[in-house]
Amino acid sequence: MPELRKDYVTDTWVIFAPARSKRPTAPPAGRRFTDPDGCPFCEGHEHLTPPETFAIRSGAPNEPGWQVRCVPNLFPALEPHEAFERSSQALFDRVTGVGTHEVIVEATDHRAHLALLDEHQVRRVVLAYRQRYRDLSRDERFRYVLIFKNHGERAGATISHPHSQLIAMPIIPQRILEETSGARTPSPDGCGFCRVIAAEIEDGRRVIREDGAFLALSPYAARFPFEAWILPRRHAPAFETLDDDGCARFGRILRDVLARLYHVLNDPDLNFYIHTAPCRDTTDGFHWHVEITPRFAEIAGFERGTGMFINPVLPEDAASILRGDVEIAGPGR
Amino acid sequence: MPELRKDYVTDTWVIFAPARSKRPTAPPAGRRFTDPDGCPFCEGHEHLTPPETFAIRSGAPNEPGWQVRCVPNLFPALEPHEAFERSSQALFDRVTGVGTHEVIVEATDHRAHLALLDEHQVRRVVLAYRQRYRDLSRDERFRYVLIFKNHGERAGATISHPHSQLIAMPIIPQRILEETSGARTPSPDGCGFCRVIAAEIEDGRRVIREDGAFLALSPYAARFPFEAWILPRRHAPAFETLDDDGCARFGRILRDVLARLYHVLNDPDLNFYIHTAPCRDTTDGFHWHVEITPRFAEIAGFERGTGMFINPVLPEDAASILRGDVEIAGPGR
Repeated sequence: MPELRKDYVTDTWVIFAPARSKRPTAPPAGRRFTDPDGCPFCEGHEHLTPPETFAIRSGAPNEPGWQVRCVPNLFPALEPHEAFERSSQALFDRVTGVGTHEVIVEATDHRAHLALLDEHQVRRVVLAYRQRYRDLSRDERFRYVLIFKNHGERAGATISHPHSQLIAMPIIPQRILEETSGARTPSPDGCGFCRVIAAEIEDGRRVIREDGAFLALSPYAARFPFEAWILPRRHAPAFETLDDDGCARFGRILRDVLARLYHVLNDPDLNFYIHTAPCRDTTDGFHWHVEITPRFAEIAGFERGTGMFINPVLPEDAASILRGDVEIAGPGR
Repeated sequence: MPELRKDYVTDTWVIFAPARSKRPTAPPAGRRFTDPDGCPFCEGHEHLTPPETFAIRSGAPNEPGWQVRCVPNLFPALEPHEAFERSSQALFDRVTGVGTHEVIVEATDHRAHLALLDEHQVRRVVLAYRQRYRDLSRDERFRYVLIFKNHGERAGATISHPHSQLIAMPIIPQRILEETSGARTPSPDGCGFCRVIAAEIEDGRRVIREDGAFLALSPYAARFPFEAWILPRRHAPAFETLDDDGCARFGRILRDVLARLYHVLNDPDLNFYIHTAPCRDTTDGFHWHVEITPRFAEIAGFERGTGMFINPVLPEDAASILRGDVEIAGPGR
């Protein structure tokens, strides 16, 4: 059974998930677009996954006819059939590994790509994110739900069929707590992220795109080359409070930024994840957003040893390239 | 010129190092034991590096005849020729990229391996670590010096010749601050790490090896499969206060643990780094140690999004395998 353990002296938590060691590793050849034979996420292969938890579809559950489909992960990091228990003996702090680990299959086509889907399909993916978030955050045992995507082998993906994932967990991750306390710093100009939005729009150099509802930028202290964030311009603690129109608009800017990365950087491996307020949090102290982190170099000993990052590309340059300035700049063009 | 920037709302620092983008990436074929032709760290190729900062050698500097050799990194993350300046405008916090980035070449032989060197040579490597630490920590502009090793391509190494690295930097990394505050929790039984040592020796299940001076264990909340730490058993804030005999003893247990990983796991890619007290720190609030982290799986979106880790291997099992219990256990053996 999985469990969570806390480091002796820091607030680093680790999930011990023996089931994860049984999962297949990515095939060495054929990399991203592996053979759809035997792919559990392809239409017509519904019997290869556990029963679906949600789908946007016509027809009966667990049959073909869907557009987006959510299923439990076959090799889950956490298990839903446990009670929450915490034990603390001297330096040994642990929590039962209660949680849920699901897959959101983004398209029926094995060779599809989230950045290249039409905007209606990306909207459906966002609607599925929202639905599963809402369903799971009602479970009192779960304190946080992370929605994330691993795209490409270097980003940790082991199946090439386009999909996102979701993990509901019994603790609030340290990174969220850090962002919450930082965001809460009181100011008449709004939360920390509200002030970031105002300052970055005014500065302009790191903006990738903005519309009435969202801002996409490469952050001032980007940890990775071409890191990009998407934030709602109006203060909103939780992703799952988006209305249907908000889901469509968020889908459009997410797709736009992913497509820029795809075209400019030749389909880089990447991760993204949605940072939203903890489950049932009513403090208004968070400002939800998405962080997109392409993968170019390996994280090495310096990063592991310090928690700091080394980035050879300034976010001003990354944003300029993603905006397309470089192509239109210069004499004669 | 490099600079350090702080994230808008959290204490995450990032080094922006344009020079790093010019370094060659590891060759796609031939992986670890690449061709020594043109290797800047091989004996006889001393002219391919900047002048050495320290060496254990006979003969003249920057000539053959050395056993361990320290040189500036050709593609440094930080630059020594800058003054320390901090500027903070609204949400934009930055520090000049003043620091030093050096390489410690561990052997003349391109195909040598730290885990397989004889103990006298490992002692010399540790003596070189100590010497460069002592030299650099006197510079008032530097607040922290991290000594680390990237072994193998997945661990971020781009040159296969055995070497470690050192970065002196103008801020104290967040990870060290977290460990310091955790270690300082007052108790009559010593610092946090002193209590870890006592509790883990009593428990025994996670101990890999102990001698009179050092304890090697796989920590209770190991972030990575077969993660191993080495701690001095007596409270000591700083690595660089080791005497010559201490360097020899530390070298022996470091080599022993690395050799266990090498033989049991077939030479895994790995990182290690020395966590020691900040430069010129006199608070006694730290307990130096080494963390060795093998690389088996990619860090993926969940880890990036949460700061938490998913580990399929319990440290009790890892320690048992590294101790050799598995081979000698069971009937008939």
